Amino acid sequence: MLKRFLVPEEDQVLVSETNARAATQMIFEKMGLSTVDAECCADVLITSDLRGCESHGVSNMLRNYVRLYQEGRQNPTPNVKVLRESAVSATLDADQGLGIQVGPRAMEMAIEKAETTGIGAVAIQNCGHVGMLAYYPLMAIEHDMIGVCMVSAGGGLQVPTFGSEPIFGTHPIAWSAPADKMPPFVFDVATTQVAANKLMLTRRIGSQLEPGWITDLDGNPIMEPIDSPNYGGFFMLPFGGTRENGGHKGYGFAMIVDIMSGILSGNGPGFLAPPNAHSQFVMAIKIDAFVDVADFKSDLDKLLERLSTMKPAEGHDRVYYAGLLEHEETSIRREQGIPYHREVVDWFNQAATDLGLNYRLP
Amino acid sequence: MLKRFLVPEEDQVLVSETNARAATQMIFEKMGLSTVDAECCADVLITSDLRGCESHGVSNMLRNYVRLYQEGRQNPTPNVKVLRESAVSATLDADQGLGIQVGPRAMEMAIEKAETTGIGAVAIQNCGHVGMLAYYPLMAIEHDMIGVCMVSAGGGLQVPTFGSEPIFGTHPIAWSAPADKMPPFVFDVATTQVAANKLMLTRRIGSQLEPGWITDLDGNPIMEPIDSPNYGGFFMLPFGGTRENGGHKGYGFAMIVDIMSGILSGNGPGFLAPPNAHSQFVMAIKIDAFVDVADFKSDLDKLLERLSTMKPAEGHDRVYYAGLLEHEETSIRREQGIPYHREVVDWFNQAATDLGLNYRLP
Repeated sequence: MLKRFLVPEEDQVLVSETNARAATQMIFEKMGLSTVDAECCADVLITSDLRGCESHGVSNMLRNYVRLYQEGRQNPTPNVKVLRESAVSATLDADQGLGIQVGPRAMEMAIEKAETTGIGAVAIQNCGHVGMLAYYPLMAIEHDMIGVCMVSAGGGLQVPTFGSEPIFGTHPIAWSAPADKMPPFVFDVATTQVAANKLMLTRRIGSQLEPGWITDLDGNPIMEPIDSPNYGGFFMLPFGGTRENGGHKGYGFAMIVDIMSGILSGNGPGFLAPPNAHSQFVMAIKIDAFVDVADFKSDLDKLLERLSTMKPAEGHDRVYYAGLLEHEETSIRREQGIPYHREVVDWFNQAATDLGLNYRLP
Repeated sequence: MLKRFLVPEEDQVLVSETNARAATQMIFEKMGLSTVDAECCADVLITSDLRGCESHGVSNMLRNYVRLYQEGRQNPTPNVKVLRESAVSATLDADQGLGIQVGPRAMEMAIEKAETTGIGAVAIQNCGHVGMLAYYPLMAIEHDMIGVCMVSAGGGLQVPTFGSEPIFGTHPIAWSAPADKMPPFVFDVATTQVAANKLMLTRRIGSQLEPGWITDLDGNPIMEPIDSPNYGGFFMLPFGGTRENGGHKGYGFAMIVDIMSGILSGNGPGFLAPPNAHSQFVMAIKIDAFVDVADFKSDLDKLLERLSTMKPAEGHDRVYYAGLLEHEETSIRREQGIPYHREVVDWFNQAATDLGLNYRLP
């Protein structure tokens, strides 16, 4: 993540992974989820926070989930239905369970299918928030598979190139592959210039948005640095931005996501889906079906090593690849704790009081 | 394509599809390809030209192929070997056949596998130029499938974000899905800011490159409009350009392509692959394995119609989606002929003399 999204040091409170995980799980259990499901949801969020992807961790998301459960708008005990299934594929109705609750099960199904056939893919309709997409392909690489995930979550945010109205959400894509000695390739991006959650993070942190990241409500790109408006006060541009700069490519990938996730699952395109009925597509590809796993990993090592040891261009310290910094950040945070904003820690402790739970952070 | 890539009207010579196809096929047969293979290769190139993707049609490519065959550097009669195969997957060694010769066969295999199992994917190592990627997913949508294609072609062109050295080629991705009443979604993009062939087109046409499209040979982005240098005089930036503008996303997609095509096929990452040993990945996903085809197409129609009838943002005439203009252009060119640059027509007629072939364009 860019520095502007990080919690300023003076506002940081370090919380151990164990304590953050336990508190999060207790909150989910209190909301009515089974212990197994609460543990799974906590794992998605805390994995996010450990990787430094706090936009999708407990800071922004947990209070939203609690509110949705308390308002009866999210199902803590979904009866997930298999709508269609083959040896390589399945389509699930998540029955309004959170994506972070149903999605990991779907990726497990995809992995089992890929273990048997070589490729497994599962499309999910009617789910809630899916969290950090990288979580799902990370599951696949543990099995020597390539993992893919795409999510269509509504349609009121992203305008198409040359368009005036928002048709897509941030429509993210994640893709991951295992290496041997090097940290794995783990790619996870919004098809907008920036994830919506990150815009909200800048509001907490007080940093500004870049030119060409968002548009006004007529679809006109805002070309000077500004403070982020709140939800409802902006639309987003596809990544790339202008047509000359490749914005149509971001737009095309947003289409791919809407097709693979929204339309293929039967959830419909994001702009027509009911509010809070998101969709997800996960796929696992068994490396061994194409090439020896050892050869694949050794070749990927060569690529990742070449990239991360390359002389950087003028003005830069280092060349990264997707997943490298997150891997390093995880080691640091496992040891030192997760640097939450003190406002987040206060929320946790207030929630303990409100919900009658016996934890206290940090 | 942007206007700068089109042949100026005063230099256009209109050639009928039939004549262009016949001449192209005759040249491939003369190079030693079987009639069936020559017909297939001509179809890939002429489909490109019909769609307005002349960067990948006969204009730039055919003379290169002829030179490669004449120099003995491309195999006109490859013995394609199946290195690994399952019900959903295969890995092929293309034996130095052109990608436009072996790739369509590979996509046919993927389609047959998807017909039976739901998903089929084929990785190809050791092939020549693959042509316009859209060709391959276009084959899949004829069978009510989603089609995917990725190509890793060498490594000396694209620098990673913050990097100083080229590690990737243009590493393109194509993805396509069938609609009912609307022209299909057909997305086909380089993961660089622009396809290398299009830079070469600007040299013929005399238009300039945008800021942030290419770098100098130290990896420093060139931030003013310039005439395109020839191959060897520039490196390319991932699409997006700068980190703030999403260049790391283009870089990540280039990695995905190198992994899915280069590494998964056993060809190795592009920067380590032997010159002229390219790789390709094709995948076909049967819609019916996930959702009713009629529902899928009707949902995609709704999305495509919504996009193409949207009020454009200020300063624009119309909102497009990937594949719409190419579909319209195909209708026009089928009727009126393909507008080749007169230099290309001259080359064709000279080639007829040199090779002893009895065609004459237009």
